[in-house]
Amino acid sequence: MIHLPVDELKQFIETTFRKLDVPEEEAKICADILITSDLRGIESHGIGRLRMYVDRINSGQIEKKSALEVVKESPTTAVIDGHHGIGMVIGYQSMNLAIEKAKKYGMGAVAVRNSTHFGIDGYYPLMAIKNGMIGMSFTNARPSVTPTFSTQPKLGTNPIAFGAPTDEEFPFLFDAATSITQRGKIEVLNREEKPAYDGWVVDSEGKRMTNPQSILDGLTQDQAALLPLGGDTEALGSHKGYGLSTMVEILSSSLQSGAFLSALSGLNTDGSSARFKVGHFFMAMSIESFLHLEDFKKNIGDLLRELRASRKTPGQSRIYTAGEKEFLNEIEVRKTGVPINENLRKDILYVKQLLGITDLVLD
Amino acid sequence: MIHLPVDELKQFIETTFRKLDVPEEEAKICADILITSDLRGIESHGIGRLRMYVDRINSGQIEKKSALEVVKESPTTAVIDGHHGIGMVIGYQSMNLAIEKAKKYGMGAVAVRNSTHFGIDGYYPLMAIKNGMIGMSFTNARPSVTPTFSTQPKLGTNPIAFGAPTDEEFPFLFDAATSITQRGKIEVLNREEKPAYDGWVVDSEGKRMTNPQSILDGLTQDQAALLPLGGDTEALGSHKGYGLSTMVEILSSSLQSGAFLSALSGLNTDGSSARFKVGHFFMAMSIESFLHLEDFKKNIGDLLRELRASRKTPGQSRIYTAGEKEFLNEIEVRKTGVPINENLRKDILYVKQLLGITDLVLD
Repeated sequence: MIHLPVDELKQFIETTFRKLDVPEEEAKICADILITSDLRGIESHGIGRLRMYVDRINSGQIEKKSALEVVKESPTTAVIDGHHGIGMVIGYQSMNLAIEKAKKYGMGAVAVRNSTHFGIDGYYPLMAIKNGMIGMSFTNARPSVTPTFSTQPKLGTNPIAFGAPTDEEFPFLFDAATSITQRGKIEVLNREEKPAYDGWVVDSEGKRMTNPQSILDGLTQDQAALLPLGGDTEALGSHKGYGLSTMVEILSSSLQSGAFLSALSGLNTDGSSARFKVGHFFMAMSIESFLHLEDFKKNIGDLLRELRASRKTPGQSRIYTAGEKEFLNEIEVRKTGVPINENLRKDILYVKQLLGITDLVLD
Repeated sequence: MIHLPVDELKQFIETTFRKLDVPEEEAKICADILITSDLRGIESHGIGRLRMYVDRINSGQIEKKSALEVVKESPTTAVIDGHHGIGMVIGYQSMNLAIEKAKKYGMGAVAVRNSTHFGIDGYYPLMAIKNGMIGMSFTNARPSVTPTFSTQPKLGTNPIAFGAPTDEEFPFLFDAATSITQRGKIEVLNREEKPAYDGWVVDSEGKRMTNPQSILDGLTQDQAALLPLGGDTEALGSHKGYGLSTMVEILSSSLQSGAFLSALSGLNTDGSSARFKVGHFFMAMSIESFLHLEDFKKNIGDLLRELRASRKTPGQSRIYTAGEKEFLNEIEVRKTGVPINENLRKDILYVKQLLGITDLVLD
């Protein structure tokens, strides 16, 4: 395991996208989104995904240059066609549009079709927070999660991200898949050669699976499925995770007539590779439309502080609120650098050699 | 167990509120919301709660007459003070305001403070659906749910309701507490003298509780707490249920400087009874601002039909989507009447005698 300085790694990501002919402004957006993921400790969505972006841009599955089209617009809403550009660029521009609308009218919402993987869902609420707003972001994804009473991977991990500014050093930021876990975490475990948790994944008969490679293979062959939040029994709320996941799928596809469920498999019916056609939904709310921003920040801060001061379970030393662990992680990573394990180091070397990039030392 | 005809029971609820000096229009709203709960099979929030409303209105904890005040307003947003009126009336009027704003600008959101229990969360999205919109509704509630790593009941059951029209006979309607279960279900089990599920509730040491009366007592004495969706381990996503619950608490209090967490206990610091000061948040989105309503209905219908056609877990005969079981229940209850068990029958008799209502036969 080596550690790489944050700024060098961010520059390397930007250089990578520039080498692929991505325009400078857009390469900077991609670098910021990917490094934000590593800073927050969400290793599954940061530099670990760089090779995937490189391969997909090189294969033509993702377009190098964003050609975002506003299909329909109202004072507070817009429908955007991403035309298969880089999801992070499409997400950034779409959330900005939602924020601009919220500045004028109090609220803004943008539905996006024909996009691609857009990095961490939580990045987009952070953009709203910088503008004194509440932000929400949703996306669908490749089928991997099963409905309650089914064993078929139908829904994506379909995350919900919700963020709001506070009077503390860091915002409230909830960013979580509506499944118990997500594909990226299985990929990390696979790289680390560790088993998955018993209760995350079922096979086509409903039996539990723990081998990460078998799970990753099964997910693409309809033979493994992640369980929704609540697991595999209604008694523990399986139908709630499934319902939330469906809500995200609806928001991410039905408002812009985009692809959904199995149409996001990345495969044509003949098995050949297809575009992913991911959908997103972004929302921004101007806090000043409701009350003074400073009052809101104190209100939410008081709420979060009361939660952290709750009586602890015997054996636990600290109660967190959403976004707090990620804030602490960022402080740590800025000091120590981004951790790079051996498999990830190989991926980075592959990208360096493929694109002839010399300016990142990996020893 | 007896069954009472839907129309007679609805009329009885309306008469009850009229006898309490609630204005006719508002009594009709209350009757419609409570009977909708029983029709959908959410017994915990229907006629089973009538006695609670009666007692609280009689004690002055809930004001008979709604005096809803718009504190602040923008094109798409409003802050409302409910001044301790009946939550169902406040909710109805506030959601209507959000819908009116969405008609003009595409989106509308209304934050409410100083309200009281507003019935089923899912009623309000149904109002949006009747107007060709997507509706969302959130509310905080008495402390009963513990943060991850805590055993203290701090958060309410904080439900999320999301509804959208479809091209089928019934809409998509997700309506669920962000805890695994909710107080109302424990109350139903208590009336039925059945144990709670092992894994829903913990005591102050983090040990599981199943006796419904002990749980109900413990919840008001800080000695029992419902677990958030995901249960008591991060491995199964406890922090996700906790985070979603916090999101609902923020939306339901921070935007209108209302009460939150322990301030919703219904008790003053000296132990005397206090007002509940519940907060809500309503949102409506005009679908026509994004695309033709008929296209949306087909999109979401296709999505839901694909989910239902998923491969079934061995032993399961049917896959549902949110709102489907409730639709089937409504068909059944309209035929057979609302089921009334012995404890509930006693509550209804109490209300009849207290208010001198003669027009509901209970035999």
